[in-house]
Amino acid sequence: MKLSASLSQLIDALRCLPGIGPKSAQRIAFHLLERDRNGGSQLGRSLTKAMDKIGHCQSCRTFCEEAICDLCQNVKRIDSGLLCVVESPSDILAIEQTGQYVGRYFVLMGHLSPLDGIGPNEIGLDQLDNLLITSDVKEVILATNPTIEGETTAHFIAELCQKNQVEASRIAHGVPVGGELDLVDGMTLSHAFNGRKVV
Amino acid sequence: MKLSASLSQLIDALRCLPGIGPKSAQRIAFHLLERDRNGGSQLGRSLTKAMDKIGHCQSCRTFCEEAICDLCQNVKRIDSGLLCVVESPSDILAIEQTGQYVGRYFVLMGHLSPLDGIGPNEIGLDQLDNLLITSDVKEVILATNPTIEGETTAHFIAELCQKNQVEASRIAHGVPVGGELDLVDGMTLSHAFNGRKVV
Ligand SMILES: [Zn+2]
Ligand SMILES: [Zn+2]
Repeated sequence: MKLSASLSQLIDALRCLPGIGPKSAQRIAFHLLERDRNGGSQLGRSLTKAMDKIGHCQSCRTFCEEAICDLCQNVKRIDSGLLCVVESPSDILAIEQTGQYVGRYFVLMGHLSPLDGIGPNEIGLDQLDNLLITSDVKEVILATNPTIEGETTAHFIAELCQKNQVEASRIAHGVPVGGELDLVDGMTLSHAFNGRKVV
Repeated sequence: MKLSASLSQLIDALRCLPGIGPKSAQRIAFHLLERDRNGGSQLGRSLTKAMDKIGHCQSCRTFCEEAICDLCQNVKRIDSGLLCVVESPSDILAIEQTGQYVGRYFVLMGHLSPLDGIGPNEIGLDQLDNLLITSDVKEVILATNPTIEGETTAHFIAELCQKNQVEASRIAHGVPVGGELDLVDGMTLSHAFNGRKVV
């Protein structure tokens, strides 16, 4: 049986969702067409708009629709002199949910991975270097993931801080080794922040 | 932390997908923005087009972008005089994959459910009645789901067929091929025993 062109295209396109195979894609397409056309249309519009409009903050690289994000413009955060380096924008969400941290962020959008061709410039370290020179940062909190790549990246950035005579600390206690930061509960994250150590 | 408007909207909109809660919606949104913007844009366009363009075949009610679907226009299927009644377009896909059936379909887009206000007209039985009068149907094969609602619906349609002097048959229920007897529920086993055939 030949499915209609738009339906085939929709089923194919749904495969971009993480963990969705051909069978699930088909089930989702039929579900939306049979039971939630408004939801499907709304999702279509939201996806188109988000993929088109959401760029990156010119200062911290997080997802943002303007040139500079709200967090980077917040006077209290700027005055704190704290800059927390994370791998992904979702890490910011997790940290903000603890309500413990009032400072700025810098988002690497990944981690060092030389074998994949991801070097310092690919994760914005030239930009971070510049930020440390031009901006009044007193302490860089290294909150990359507690994985081998995350540790390597943290170590590399610590050296960058040393070069710029800025103190660097690494979040420490409570973060399970091998885990992903944005899956850690708020209490654990709070402990990790309070227990950070100079590196 | 306030997410940007387009990002919040996207996360909300993703909740229309079956089984996707707020946490999964957030992960999907970040995944697409970080790693697959082309896929996300393509999905946005495909959803908008599909929800807008895909209607129902005027004859069999399955999903279709034209007035009448290919299956309903197929001469071999029309000439067979067979009409298979199913609850959902995905049932057609499953039956077509067997390669055994060459006939037309009629899609109820649901089943009788008086408590939910779904009566005969809501599942297109007025249209089916008309089809039985105007079209040369020799046998209606009732392939609704083997649930209480599916059986009730099949029974109701069988009476409609009788009124129109068209033969009605029900697909056989029994032990699934390749299944284990002790894992089959009692209702199915009863059907299997009652439907036994001389070998
Ligand atoms: Zn920013
Ligand atoms: Zn049709």
